[in-house]
Amino acid sequence: MDCWVDGQPADSLSLKDRGLAYGDGLFETFAVRNGQPILLDRHLARLAEGCVRLAIAADIQLIRQELLSYAAAMGEGVLKLILTRGDGLRGYAPDPAAPGRRVLQGNPPSAYPAAHAEQGVRLFPCSTRLAKQPLLAGLKHLNRLEQVLARAEWQDSEHAEGLMLDQAGRVVEGVFSNIFLVRDGVLITPDLKRCGVAGVMRAEILFQAESLAIPTQIADISLEQLQWADEVFICNSVYGVWPVRAYAALSWPVGPLTRKLQTIARALLDA
Amino acid sequence: MDCWVDGQPADSLSLKDRGLAYGDGLFETFAVRNGQPILLDRHLARLAEGCVRLAIAADIQLIRQELLSYAAAMGEGVLKLILTRGDGLRGYAPDPAAPGRRVLQGNPPSAYPAAHAEQGVRLFPCSTRLAKQPLLAGLKHLNRLEQVLARAEWQDSEHAEGLMLDQAGRVVEGVFSNIFLVRDGVLITPDLKRCGVAGVMRAEILFQAESLAIPTQIADISLEQLQWADEVFICNSVYGVWPVRAYAALSWPVGPLTRKLQTIARALLDA
Repeated sequence: MDCWVDGQPADSLSLKDRGLAYGDGLFETFAVRNGQPILLDRHLARLAEGCVRLAIAADIQLIRQELLSYAAAMGEGVLKLILTRGDGLRGYAPDPAAPGRRVLQGNPPSAYPAAHAEQGVRLFPCSTRLAKQPLLAGLKHLNRLEQVLARAEWQDSEHAEGLMLDQAGRVVEGVFSNIFLVRDGVLITPDLKRCGVAGVMRAEILFQAESLAIPTQIADISLEQLQWADEVFICNSVYGVWPVRAYAALSWPVGPLTRKLQTIARALLDA
Repeated sequence: MDCWVDGQPADSLSLKDRGLAYGDGLFETFAVRNGQPILLDRHLARLAEGCVRLAIAADIQLIRQELLSYAAAMGEGVLKLILTRGDGLRGYAPDPAAPGRRVLQGNPPSAYPAAHAEQGVRLFPCSTRLAKQPLLAGLKHLNRLEQVLARAEWQDSEHAEGLMLDQAGRVVEGVFSNIFLVRDGVLITPDLKRCGVAGVMRAEILFQAESLAIPTQIADISLEQLQWADEVFICNSVYGVWPVRAYAALSWPVGPLTRKLQTIARALLDA
């Protein structure tokens, strides 16, 4: 399907766009099923927060309408929205009134091996550490060189994802996933106040767990805590939940809470 | 003058470009005088280092030829080169053989008030702190949201630049400049091993100072050391050298070493 730029079919972008010049923008990646973008409200809430924090004067209702129209036309697949600050002149100073530029890109459904979800995955131990930047932490912004460097660290297919630590050695996230661990029946996920992307599926899983009266905790997580976890899994809004069976010398069984939350995520994504 | 993309006149970019998707690339901004890009070798050396560190397989000799041709055609002004990793598919994994995409953009000469160079400038105290990321420190890469946030902190024309600290409170750089201070005849500039852009004019000034047997030092600099400086100035490869006369409650006279190095920079830029 054709891309859209500001609501119109297009295959190219202005060379003055600040998304290109500075990574000055945000993105969201939606699973689309039966013409519907899944977890739309959560994606739009994160986008809106990013617009506030980066001071991009975007019209979220207009973006919602475009996403719904585009998803209806594509039917099934993965829909990526890039929202940049739009064209700039020379220099970093942003125009506080700029409404942003909307780029929609449709892709076929992701084709991950079924074994990732069934048997679980091995995580590559990335040496690229995430920098502490509270002003950008949580946002899905376009400054993603750390993820590019981390993903370039392995080429084998044995590792489906990589685990990223921060510079103090805390466990933060995967390259394109969030991470959870289970210990003594408590579901724990890293605090993302210093770095990391606050994933939409992460938020949904926390919400679902609370609905099921499963105790949850958002906290700093050390590698030692990871070692003592009963279950570990990763998630994102496209593939749902993958159990983690190994990271470096550590390994875990696929546990019952992982399976329960995986089933819930799958139901959402197969809607 | 028209932009060039990969050597051809163009006004737009592929929507699949990883420069847009992830800020996955580098840039350089050249002053052009009499059809020549100034400090070309230093710019290309930094670009080449960036290509090695980001693993972009760019042809630096081809880029040199394109820059020379473009500068010759534009005559006078500011020439920006953006080198992205080129088109990508979905996902962060980079293609290690990708030769990169070259975008050249010509702009008229910068029109800064003459007073900036003559009387010196006041620096805005930016509250946006630079994150520590040794893997990217020194590079002029496309992940520039910290600079966008910092530059958005002031709108008045009283402040020509802003000063950025790192998260430990060390003095690092301006938003679009490097900073030097002079103390007891020694020229000191911040160590950029944790964050910051290793500016081409910074490198040239260090080289020129050493040629003049002026002692130089690359070191961590605290705000207290800034307070006790005899002279302070900022620099970049477009405007040369601006004396700094004030930052928050601090002020400095425009000193003789600043003037000497400013004259040298001006001679380069007026070549």
